[in-house]
Amino acid sequence: MTHPRRTTVGIIGAGPAGLLLARLLHRSGIDCVVLESRDRDYVERRQRAGILEQATVDALRAGGAGERMDREGLPHDGIELRFDRRAHRLDFPALTGGRRVMVYAQTEVVKDLIALQLADGPPLLFDARATAVEGAHTDRPVIRYLHHGTAHTLDCDYVVGCDGYHGVTRQAVPQSERRTYERGYPYSWLGVLAEVPPSSDELVYAHSERGFALLSMRTPAVSRLYLQVPNGTDPAAWPDERIWDELEARTAVDAPWKLRRGPITAKSVLPMRSSVTEPMRYGRVLLAGDAAHIVPPTGAKGLNLAVADVTVLARALDRLHRTGGAELLDAYSDTCLRRVWRAEHFSWFMTTTLHTAPGQTPFDTRLQRAQLDRIAGSPHAAAELAENYTGVPLP
Amino acid sequence: MTHPRRTTVGIIGAGPAGLLLARLLHRSGIDCVVLESRDRDYVERRQRAGILEQATVDALRAGGAGERMDREGLPHDGIELRFDRRAHRLDFPALTGGRRVMVYAQTEVVKDLIALQLADGPPLLFDARATAVEGAHTDRPVIRYLHHGTAHTLDCDYVVGCDGYHGVTRQAVPQSERRTYERGYPYSWLGVLAEVPPSSDELVYAHSERGFALLSMRTPAVSRLYLQVPNGTDPAAWPDERIWDELEARTAVDAPWKLRRGPITAKSVLPMRSSVTEPMRYGRVLLAGDAAHIVPPTGAKGLNLAVADVTVLARALDRLHRTGGAELLDAYSDTCLRRVWRAEHFSWFMTTTLHTAPGQTPFDTRLQRAQLDRIAGSPHAAAELAENYTGVPLP
Repeated sequence: MTHPRRTTVGIIGAGPAGLLLARLLHRSGIDCVVLESRDRDYVERRQRAGILEQATVDALRAGGAGERMDREGLPHDGIELRFDRRAHRLDFPALTGGRRVMVYAQTEVVKDLIALQLADGPPLLFDARATAVEGAHTDRPVIRYLHHGTAHTLDCDYVVGCDGYHGVTRQAVPQSERRTYERGYPYSWLGVLAEVPPSSDELVYAHSERGFALLSMRTPAVSRLYLQVPNGTDPAAWPDERIWDELEARTAVDAPWKLRRGPITAKSVLPMRSSVTEPMRYGRVLLAGDAAHIVPPTGAKGLNLAVADVTVLARALDRLHRTGGAELLDAYSDTCLRRVWRAEHFSWFMTTTLHTAPGQTPFDTRLQRAQLDRIAGSPHAAAELAENYTGVPLP
Repeated sequence: MTHPRRTTVGIIGAGPAGLLLARLLHRSGIDCVVLESRDRDYVERRQRAGILEQATVDALRAGGAGERMDREGLPHDGIELRFDRRAHRLDFPALTGGRRVMVYAQTEVVKDLIALQLADGPPLLFDARATAVEGAHTDRPVIRYLHHGTAHTLDCDYVVGCDGYHGVTRQAVPQSERRTYERGYPYSWLGVLAEVPPSSDELVYAHSERGFALLSMRTPAVSRLYLQVPNGTDPAAWPDERIWDELEARTAVDAPWKLRRGPITAKSVLPMRSSVTEPMRYGRVLLAGDAAHIVPPTGAKGLNLAVADVTVLARALDRLHRTGGAELLDAYSDTCLRRVWRAEHFSWFMTTTLHTAPGQTPFDTRLQRAQLDRIAGSPHAAAELAENYTGVPLP
């Protein structure tokens, strides 16, 4: 295989952000290369989110990756909140003037984008580990990388880091130029996959004094379930029976309803944290997705923010390519960060409203219930949640 | 003076709750007595809140105490939020379908109610310090009190404690029967009265990294101003000049605007806390107002909750008096507590969104700004604040 020596946009990371950006740039006739440190199998198996906002669905279609999503994805018109042994449904289209979400796993999005990229796209190299990003403030930044152990360099007009919080791109920016805002949470999620049809047609977010639980799904035959657990929990401490019993206890309501049990095929513990790195641009190096921001998963915003970033970025690079105008690129960081902070706030709100923190006082619990009661009883409070959940429109 | 030996409703405390309850009961033809431990002058001078919700205005009119309020009170159609050197106005009638608030000081409400009560009302005794409430679970509870140092007893059908958190009524309920939910805040307010016309026609709530500030008013000639200060602050540490400078710094905006300065006539430090005692009824003893719940002042809910309690209670006692039906009285605690928790949540929300806590992280500050940005930009978020501020309707 020949290794490209130069490209217009060097993209580090083949998650949904990097892959979609490559598709969108390709459609604009902009040359790019995607470097991914892992192998294809690993990337296609990573379990991540599964709730796509309308704007994300639109962006994937625009990137040519909508076909299987539109066939297999599950459009959802609402979610259910459970607290105090009651259930309250939020009707998204009614509350937001027609917006809904799509349940379609990030792993499937990634598979679709990789297949497209390998079929007709610009180069996508697996096992290509970026080791350095140099010259951010020159006209020609360089990515150094190892491909199957051999060192290469890629000269770029722009480098886009879609390589996550611990990726080389963010780390390559001197600490004096960036500021990172962070917050941890005193609990994690135990996430499981189960070979059993979902017990509810829509997602169930359950607040209980035993802790938070979320009933979700991947397909009509596969459930995705989450339990709040203490930080540092070993999944081995949770035999299947204990998981089902706890899910049942936390989602119990005073109405006929049954949690379906089935074989659990995967179990893992997810830490929860919030992080924003500002700005999202350093000369000719740009950050997108998790490289720039992390949200706790409660608001289902991580994937959607990543897709929003690269949608804004692709539009900016297209403008530059077609007209030479840099105004959208210059605005990239500010444009994205407004949406990022909205999502950070919403994710914090969902997380702290629904979880039971260790050492939380009875007063705190009553405040949470007052907030949930309000969402159940006030059209404005319900619409505020629904608008954020289905996603504020791209600027 | 002869001391009444028995009455239908014995009311402890001549704040707005006790006084308005007496007026409403009197209008229903229900016999009552009000006992107040302080003298009239003290009660009429206590500086408290000054924002009346529509429901509070209606209740005062129903109690016959609307005349001077309607003449001298200042109807307000909105408030201004300031943050990030910007100002954003919330238009209450537009956001809530016509609701507004009235600026009329609690001291004036109390003066009006006392004058009415002394002119034609049931007995109101000053310097009458309740020392015990006995027999809550009998048919004939008794209030023991000292009037100018002499001991008396008052036999009642019902006793209503409107005597605050530290009052005898709440304390008389055994701890095994009541549960109190509490939360403190790591800051206080320095409140001042100044002989200067308000610098803004409407209240200004300012969020800044220096701390919270509130510009309010008592009359068109008297300003009421507040600064967030550390707990334990001595007002003497705040000479007038420092107060004005700090108010100016915290409310600064990138627009022409001037803070008017004038002679400061009163200075005091107000602690901030939240407290709810449940239930609000113990046999024939009922709690109302601050005896049952405390809110931090940021949401302007204390006086309004007290008025709502006694409005619900007067209606319940009127029903009992007219029909013998106890269903409203039996529902009193639950009816009030729903509204109380809504107000507790709103007061906590306003407080934690607008203040800068000691040790608060930059991430926390950005979340606050994201929340304020959202209120400035989203009709639902703005309406949610406006509905709570102008007051959820009485059930």
